Amino acid sequence: MNEHAASTGGEESSSFPMGIMASAWSHKHLLGLEDLTRSEIETILNVAEGFIEISRRRKKKVPVLNGKVVVNLFFEPSTRTRTSFSLSAKRLSADTIDFTSSGSSVSKGESFIDTAKNLEAMGVDVMVVRHNVPGAPHLLAKHLNCSIINAGDGAHEHPTQGLLDAFTIRQARGRLDGLTVGLIGDIAHSRVARSNIHALTKLGAKVIVCGPPTLIPLSIHHWNVEVAYRLDDILPRLDVINLLRIQFERQRSRLFPSIHEYAALYGMNGERLRRSKKDILILAPGPINRGIELTPDVADGQNSAILEQVTNGLAVRMAVLYLLCRPQTQPAA
Amino acid sequence: MNEHAASTGGEESSSFPMGIMASAWSHKHLLGLEDLTRSEIETILNVAEGFIEISRRRKKKVPVLNGKVVVNLFFEPSTRTRTSFSLSAKRLSADTIDFTSSGSSVSKGESFIDTAKNLEAMGVDVMVVRHNVPGAPHLLAKHLNCSIINAGDGAHEHPTQGLLDAFTIRQARGRLDGLTVGLIGDIAHSRVARSNIHALTKLGAKVIVCGPPTLIPLSIHHWNVEVAYRLDDILPRLDVINLLRIQFERQRSRLFPSIHEYAALYGMNGERLRRSKKDILILAPGPINRGIELTPDVADGQNSAILEQVTNGLAVRMAVLYLLCRPQTQPAA
Amino acid sequence: MNEHAASTGGEESSSFPMGIMASAWSHKHLLGLEDLTRSEIETILNVAEGFIEISRRRKKKVPVLNGKVVVNLFFEPSTRTRTSFSLSAKRLSADTIDFTSSGSSVSKGESFIDTAKNLEAMGVDVMVVRHNVPGAPHLLAKHLNCSIINAGDGAHEHPTQGLLDAFTIRQARGRLDGLTVGLIGDIAHSRVARSNIHALTKLGAKVIVCGPPTLIPLSIHHWNVEVAYRLDDILPRLDVINLLRIQFERQRSRLFPSIHEYAALYGMNGERLRRSKKDILILAPGPINRGIELTPDVADGQNSAILEQVTNGLAVRMAVLYLLCRPQTQPAA
Repeated sequence: MNEHAASTGGEESSSFPMGIMASAWSHKHLLGLEDLTRSEIETILNVAEGFIEISRRRKKKVPVLNGKVVVNLFFEPSTRTRTSFSLSAKRLSADTIDFTSSGSSVSKGESFIDTAKNLEAMGVDVMVVRHNVPGAPHLLAKHLNCSIINAGDGAHEHPTQGLLDAFTIRQARGRLDGLTVGLIGDIAHSRVARSNIHALTKLGAKVIVCGPPTLIPLSIHHWNVEVAYRLDDILPRLDVINLLRIQFERQRSRLFPSIHEYAALYGMNGERLRRSKKDILILAPGPINRGIELTPDVADGQNSAILEQVTNGLAVRMAVLYLLCRPQTQPAA
Repeated sequence: MNEHAASTGGEESSSFPMGIMASAWSHKHLLGLEDLTRSEIETILNVAEGFIEISRRRKKKVPVLNGKVVVNLFFEPSTRTRTSFSLSAKRLSADTIDFTSSGSSVSKGESFIDTAKNLEAMGVDVMVVRHNVPGAPHLLAKHLNCSIINAGDGAHEHPTQGLLDAFTIRQARGRLDGLTVGLIGDIAHSRVARSNIHALTKLGAKVIVCGPPTLIPLSIHHWNVEVAYRLDDILPRLDVINLLRIQFERQRSRLFPSIHEYAALYGMNGERLRRSKKDILILAPGPINRGIELTPDVADGQNSAILEQVTNGLAVRMAVLYLLCRPQTQPAA
Repeated sequence: MNEHAASTGGEESSSFPMGIMASAWSHKHLLGLEDLTRSEIETILNVAEGFIEISRRRKKKVPVLNGKVVVNLFFEPSTRTRTSFSLSAKRLSADTIDFTSSGSSVSKGESFIDTAKNLEAMGVDVMVVRHNVPGAPHLLAKHLNCSIINAGDGAHEHPTQGLLDAFTIRQARGRLDGLTVGLIGDIAHSRVARSNIHALTKLGAKVIVCGPPTLIPLSIHHWNVEVAYRLDDILPRLDVINLLRIQFERQRSRLFPSIHEYAALYGMNGERLRRSKKDILILAPGPINRGIELTPDVADGQNSAILEQVTNGLAVRMAVLYLLCRPQTQPAA
């Protein structure tokens, strides 16, 4: 802290927020939420809270990662998550590079690990990895020396999304303990669902997953969640509803009869909102399909925290980047 | 001003040029030149003049937008304008992000406004928007809280191009009052023509539009311009000639018989240059089609200000970014 | 130097390494190694050594090119080289812009020189150019005022690759004088081979080129190199072996019978390694085809310097950018 304060001359606009205590963190990578303790998840959320304060300043930039290099290594198309990580890194004054699979050495036959090792050899400090194969970031964590952040690996995990969802609920309600959260939609193919379940249950919330039987994984009974097949059955109990995206671009074989029927059974709309708790918090990881997972009046209504999720995503990613890069986690001072 | 001087220690290379008075500016957005007063347009040009001075320094960077985020949100292919805005923002020390429609959430079915609102929620201060639908930037200005710059909306307006053309003329001649400017080519489909007409007439120039009848819009009599169909008729009267680009990539149905005939009737060449005023100033928004709108000897000759236009484009865009972002225009200090 | 020290308050993390003497450099461009003297090549390598030291710091950034603009103007797909130049420029605090041919004004019919001149008019200081036409960067150097770096022109030269290979050998062995270096593979179509031959022979190494007769150019006798057609004939004499990449994506007509046969005759593997000098240094410009030019055990083994090449590439490119941009080479102070 002192170092940062010193290097910026202590001016208001770039000094680091006081009071961020990050002692409960000793990981080099963020590969998933399954392996984190409640205390570690809370550490990330607490650090993120400090960064939310920075985002309200006129000069939204702090020099804590000046001279560090963050690479987005994305093997699936993404703008939202990639941009969020880029802006988070820039706010911390890191340099950023985007590396996407098209037009790259990958098309010249280079292996996944070789591509990553080559980038690492260019002096990369953190690699943000998205890949359609579950475990791809874990493979890199084994073979590389830099820090790895999983930005989505197949249907496995998307930890920063789970964190930002938890952060948004905590911001609205002050806590997660005792809250009932419904995860609605395609649970089977959703890394967002998996990371949400880990984060929310560890922080004390009760999670109910709800969707068509074809979209609920057979392994669901291993998870510490309740299962429902009709949204209307559980709606009145929910403090928070998280409407997963129907990923039309992924779905080859149709796993539910029709979009119209999906919207009728699982879509959030004004009528269902009236049958919900008055202060139900509505989340959606986006990009949303208006009229399918939720109707426009709900998406833009008072209960919706969809845009807060996006804003909080930056603070959470800044927190993760900070925790992985700060001096104490380096091999030698 | 004092704030900037203080934060940079007053060193020559990064101090802000003195004498920039930007009092005649109170807009949050730059959507078009039609709605601006002469005084407002002059304010932008005057601020741009200060920035031209910076571009001649060895260190071409000032910290006035440090901590601000400028996003290029481009739904049409562009390198020139996008790069110009990026470099303008970087010279002001802003962070920049490019968001293009390919490979983005747009392909996942997200709506235009949702895409923009999501970007805004990431802490964007200025959104530079190009879209093939006229009015698209105005729509965003209604729905978003950040500043919007129109970087081209269909055939409607391209205000920074109009400003940089006016700036280039004023730079060469000291004024626009009393000058006669010919706009040659496809007036009907050109946002450059529209923004030029607004800027030039407001600043006191006489504008003559000239092109094949099929490329002159029927509504032209509503504009404060003279119309001509033969370049040779008006050539001797012109102080400035602005040769609009024939946009082969847009033109589906051929609106003129042949490229050869177009060049013969409306192309600027050495022979026509000899019949022009000796100091005629030659502009072209580019990228130019050599041998069509103008011949290489004219494009590279002494009367051409084509590359000055590009250089001035940065100063004008820096001025616009500065005016939209400076402290006085913020809701609360 | 004083200027930089002053502007950063003299703190350790951003001060420029002492002892870099760059007096033996007076070029504005880096177009190829053929025209450089031994002393000039050594100057680049010596400056690069200073930058290697910076890359070991926690804050890998120096302010020497703050306010400068470096553009990557790439007309061939590349991620590795482009990213290396971008990160090199960022480490020197320059602003960077990527300009690739797809989606650009090039597709609107603009000429190569016009595209470059337009970029230059935006205030570019250094243009890093890759093009499939030999001599394309030289053409720009004639027509533009900014500095040009050749990042690969057809089968002609790729000077920074030659420099980083020479640097890596010198780093491992302390010198090049008296060493025997084998260049293996497609000599005829390789710009890497050409730039290597220039750098290595000028620095005192003996070069043996070795490959199938169809991949050895007829003009090879003009070069100061030995020619071999069987790797096993020369293997025991080599201090360094540089395994050129078989560029499947370029090779239209097959110039050798089969990949299997190529690997059998010219591939480096464990068996051949045992018949080599114990400390043979193994280089490969990458991206490598594992199992073709070399087997995984060799690529990842103790003799391999493949990742060091990547790391050194940044230091060499920083050195080149620094030498082309430093105050002394500017027209006027």
